[in-house]
Amino acid sequence: MPKPERHVLVCLNTRPPGNSKGSCGEKGAEALFEQLKAMVKGRGLGERVIVNRTSCLKHCSRGITVAVYPENVWYSGVEEADLGEICSSHLEEGRPLARLLMPDIPWE
Amino acid sequence: MPKPERHVLVCLNTRPPGNSKGSCGEKGAEALFEQLKAMVKGRGLGERVIVNRTSCLKHCSRGITVAVYPENVWYSGVEEADLGEICSSHLEEGRPLARLLMPDIPWE
Repeated sequence: MPKPERHVLVCLNTRPPGNSKGSCGEKGAEALFEQLKAMVKGRGLGERVIVNRTSCLKHCSRGITVAVYPENVWYSGVEEADLGEICSSHLEEGRPLARLLMPDIPWE
Repeated sequence: MPKPERHVLVCLNTRPPGNSKGSCGEKGAEALFEQLKAMVKGRGLGERVIVNRTSCLKHCSRGITVAVYPENVWYSGVEEADLGEICSSHLEEGRPLARLLMPDIPWE
């Protein structure tokens, strides 16, 4: 099969209000996911890059969490304002964004 | 961050009844996902392997579709009866199952 050149996972897990860890869903992950999908398609990357919503990526307190394979690069605290740079630098040019890399924390 | 040794994606997309492509959801992906999660935990792999449900993995007619990173191995037609072998051979011993590999078909 033609495998994706890159596979982007956006955590859409939502925890109940008041949960101490928070969750990506509470931070606007649904809208961010839809925007990223549209951006990938709009930039002509739709035949090479798959963008999926996923269940919990286990970094709730650092969300919105986004993972990119095959590089196995994990981003924390992703906001809609970051998506353009993720697309142009990482998805188009293969240069992950150092400023958004997930810190070394245990799975939640 | 401590990255997962393996990351398993199970497609849970459901299309409306009668759609010609079918969908993983219609083929029982929800139950398969829950069973795989429980199996991974039960075998003591829960600290090393993440199992996520995802939106459409784009191989609807060949579902249930399961992808495993970082190997970038894609399985088609996965059934609950296959999960034990996926766990023991691939997730525990690092040997992907040739008999389930996704054929070379375009994204759907």
